[in-house]
Amino acid sequence: MAAINEFELIDRFFRRPSQSAVLGIGDDAALVQSTPGHEIALSVDMLVAGRHFFEDVDPESLGYKALAVNLSDMAAMGAKPRWALLAGALPHVESDWLAAFARGFFALADDHGVELIGGDTTRGPLTLCVTIIGEVPRGKALTRGGASPGDAIWLSGPLGDAALALACHSRRVELTASEFESCERALLRPNPRVALGERLRGVASAAIDISDGLTGDLGHVLEASRVGATIQLAAIPRSAVLGARMHGARRAVAIDALLAGGDDYELCFTAPAARTADVESVGRELRLDLASIGVVTSGTALRVEDEAGQALERLPRAFDHFADY
Amino acid sequence: MAAINEFELIDRFFRRPSQSAVLGIGDDAALVQSTPGHEIALSVDMLVAGRHFFEDVDPESLGYKALAVNLSDMAAMGAKPRWALLAGALPHVESDWLAAFARGFFALADDHGVELIGGDTTRGPLTLCVTIIGEVPRGKALTRGGASPGDAIWLSGPLGDAALALACHSRRVELTASEFESCERALLRPNPRVALGERLRGVASAAIDISDGLTGDLGHVLEASRVGATIQLAAIPRSAVLGARMHGARRAVAIDALLAGGDDYELCFTAPAARTADVESVGRELRLDLASIGVVTSGTALRVEDEAGQALERLPRAFDHFADY
Repeated sequence: MAAINEFELIDRFFRRPSQSAVLGIGDDAALVQSTPGHEIALSVDMLVAGRHFFEDVDPESLGYKALAVNLSDMAAMGAKPRWALLAGALPHVESDWLAAFARGFFALADDHGVELIGGDTTRGPLTLCVTIIGEVPRGKALTRGGASPGDAIWLSGPLGDAALALACHSRRVELTASEFESCERALLRPNPRVALGERLRGVASAAIDISDGLTGDLGHVLEASRVGATIQLAAIPRSAVLGARMHGARRAVAIDALLAGGDDYELCFTAPAARTADVESVGRELRLDLASIGVVTSGTALRVEDEAGQALERLPRAFDHFADY
Repeated sequence: MAAINEFELIDRFFRRPSQSAVLGIGDDAALVQSTPGHEIALSVDMLVAGRHFFEDVDPESLGYKALAVNLSDMAAMGAKPRWALLAGALPHVESDWLAAFARGFFALADDHGVELIGGDTTRGPLTLCVTIIGEVPRGKALTRGGASPGDAIWLSGPLGDAALALACHSRRVELTASEFESCERALLRPNPRVALGERLRGVASAAIDISDGLTGDLGHVLEASRVGATIQLAAIPRSAVLGARMHGARRAVAIDALLAGGDDYELCFTAPAARTADVESVGRELRLDLASIGVVTSGTALRVEDEAGQALERLPRAFDHFADY
């Protein structure tokens, strides 16, 4: 292969005419201008091959997902994503791989009006690091700390399919080909709820995105808000694939996927009971089946009630990037 | 070892009371407020073990350097660094290692008033990714594209010592223990020229920091500015250690280190001849030996003249993170 240096690589696949930035890719830093009256929201996620994705994942899906998980963080803040920085270590340089990765990344970026304004590439074990920069009207961000006893707890969509795809990979559950296909789609192409996050400003009292599993992520909201919660297992939205495993030999796997699966990137948010009609209206407007799954309580305990109203004795642990390695 | 999850890790070593951010570490994103009349400067660098640093490097130096290379990008833009995000993959969890890394990182961050506002940690091959966010008065950023024929070319300090330390590691050059110590200090503890970058706003016509080597990085300025340059080898600042190798058997290694060594993090900038007194005044004020090493020319060629005024026939290549692996 002819020697291609990293600058040429960046140019070829990732540099596009600057749209909304004062200065885009190609200098020591990018320059942007923030919108008056807004705060800047910033988040970073690192994805490591063999840990967050399979090394042989199709690169177009990987490009999509590397951005999607960051857009989901903006959604959880009620922020509008504007710009992104992409750093990556690659074990080797392959034009086709980079082209497909860029295709997946930019397809999602374009859907959300996000501009790639900078980055860094190097050789190394396959690792991706996306920094997302968004904006939110001053004081209007959705944080984890605003939930109050009595608030309803909502989910933006079904949980657990991504975890089922992984469970099938590791042979903890069997799926038909078409079941696996739909679960794998949830794993590879999560739909960040950006529009929902923006519409929940002034409606939701707290929000988080489900990246590490419902009980763990909801737990962060409860901790930050110094409250507890009771949720109904039966109320948690799920696919038909997962629902079919809730009774029988695979029930434990299905419950784990639902409560602690992670990689779902749905929003979990709380809203005062008085705002239920507003939440439902937002759901209709965005064509999302928003589901009320429980209620915020005083105290600090998270209680998950099964179909008979009994509290689950053991809550599956949240996904921990260290402990679960 | 007792199980420590990643959230506890982050809390223990990296979460500190928020200073200048609206919302710091601990939510789905950080929130900051930009200063009116300013643009936001953003840059990211990824450092991979075995490529940008030795896997067994002392973690305090690594913490320092991971931030230093990013501060250097802000310096090269004339931006004031304000906030940072830190993402890291770690092969295992060691409290002592993390504590030392955090010590090095925060020592430099505190020197520059930079606040760590977010991050991400995961298990994986040792990799660090720092995003730096700074501010620069609107329209005042130093870019690579402003050099004009006749401008003087300046360097903020000596080049090549970091490369000599690496050359000694790989036995391409022999250094005494004290020589190695001073070169290794240049490699591990580069001094980002942030104050200089800020003072050069309105004085310099273009700027870049020397991360990949002088000829390569100056080459980026020439390309962006569509100009050429002639520089004098003899005028390039160097340490006594490197100077002692410029004559004799190691001259080729010394010239390579000086012209293409990389990892120096000095600023290279251009300024109109009429601003020479202003540049010298900034140098005196900041106690930096700013050196004029050549002049911007029309055309696009970079000519490096040796001590006898002869053009070097072969310019050492800039460091390329792919090709040189």
